[in-house]
Amino acid sequence: MAERNIRLVVQYDGTEYAGFQIQPNRPTIQGALEEALRKVSQEEVRVIGSGRTDAGVHAMGQVVNFRTKASIPVEKVPIALNSVLPKDITVSAADEVPPEFHARYAATGKVYRYRILNREVPSPFLCRYTWHVRSWLSTQRMRRAGKALLGEHDFSSFCAAGDEAETHVRELRRCDIMRRGETIDITLEANGFLYMMVRNIVGTLVEVGRGHLEPEGTTEILAARDRSQAGPTAPPQGLLLLRVDYPPL
Amino acid sequence: MAERNIRLVVQYDGTEYAGFQIQPNRPTIQGALEEALRKVSQEEVRVIGSGRTDAGVHAMGQVVNFRTKASIPVEKVPIALNSVLPKDITVSAADEVPPEFHARYAATGKVYRYRILNREVPSPFLCRYTWHVRSWLSTQRMRRAGKALLGEHDFSSFCAAGDEAETHVRELRRCDIMRRGETIDITLEANGFLYMMVRNIVGTLVEVGRGHLEPEGTTEILAARDRSQAGPTAPPQGLLLLRVDYPPL
Repeated sequence: MAERNIRLVVQYDGTEYAGFQIQPNRPTIQGALEEALRKVSQEEVRVIGSGRTDAGVHAMGQVVNFRTKASIPVEKVPIALNSVLPKDITVSAADEVPPEFHARYAATGKVYRYRILNREVPSPFLCRYTWHVRSWLSTQRMRRAGKALLGEHDFSSFCAAGDEAETHVRELRRCDIMRRGETIDITLEANGFLYMMVRNIVGTLVEVGRGHLEPEGTTEILAARDRSQAGPTAPPQGLLLLRVDYPPL
Repeated sequence: MAERNIRLVVQYDGTEYAGFQIQPNRPTIQGALEEALRKVSQEEVRVIGSGRTDAGVHAMGQVVNFRTKASIPVEKVPIALNSVLPKDITVSAADEVPPEFHARYAATGKVYRYRILNREVPSPFLCRYTWHVRSWLSTQRMRRAGKALLGEHDFSSFCAAGDEAETHVRELRRCDIMRRGETIDITLEANGFLYMMVRNIVGTLVEVGRGHLEPEGTTEILAARDRSQAGPTAPPQGLLLLRVDYPPL
């Protein structure tokens, strides 16, 4: 059969994984996907992700692609892969894409959600999926701080060492901060994110919400282009890659 | 200090535990609570639970009590215990109760919720907390079957071997079956439950929902007082002990 290029939407609970990117002798999402594909297609398959997620980070809508000569009908791919994948990784959709489609290069935008549990008592059911912050956070202050980040900026102050991007300029299109009872959801949308950018923005917004930083300070932090000016990095387990956007095929 | 009797409300994710009841060399909820109490009170403390939950079963409102001579104020007990408990167990409330209060003997009722994920694709986020049933379930049929179980009956047909209860008569006060999108919640309330009773009722209701058993069959199953007449046992991870009721102090 001719080689096809298949795109998958993948969900995972990242708790037990050392991140998306394959590493020797450690459990990774990419490694688990490639192993499942090997079982299903009897081929050595390389999986290309829209981007890496870090250890402990989750995904509801990670997108990957891979090339295969196997003859399995595309609509059967999710069922076949789910039957061999570990329970904490699920393929929720598959479609055939043009040969040149590349999950990373073709992405035009991403949406992340960061969830905070903001109350005194921890929760055994939410500890895998939230950052537990005991002190009360003012979402009003956080919203003011977030507004200053919207638009096109050099986000060097929110980028961890180790980023390989050529430019640190990104366009932040959305920064919604919503309290629902005892949880606070921060939804961030951009044309792309730098290494640790979401978690560094969230860590800074939480400092503002606590009252340790002023909402107006965000503008100065951005202008400094210096990581040491921003707040600490929020822990990974609150973070979820919600969606990756592509142009219509 | 004089001995006090303290009651706790406990939440836990049971995934990693061999059940509530203490066992040598295996992680249990009771074992973890007693170890935490030992650290906090410097005493050997015996924890009495409202009842055992099985391996993999969760709780939102398990109730336990213990006797202590330690001087820690009761309102500080949750914070102290949560600081030493593993993340998947949380004490959400504590109060002092009369010396004769016993979490098991004093309970007048219990509420359990069983959650089913009823769709084709599994979920990495819900697999710890739901039973994934692929074939479509008719909640209308399940509701009809559930109605026949309401009231005072001998529930021997839904009781697993190993139950130590003197009588198998229980009063089922509520059997609500509610679909919300792709999840189905079955809420059961009774004056008490036999060993595996909730999971055996749910397993039977699911057979009815699939169309393998008739809704009217539940009456005959009850009358048979024979475990082999009912459906299979539903898996543990969908089950949550929601609440334990006591008379007002």
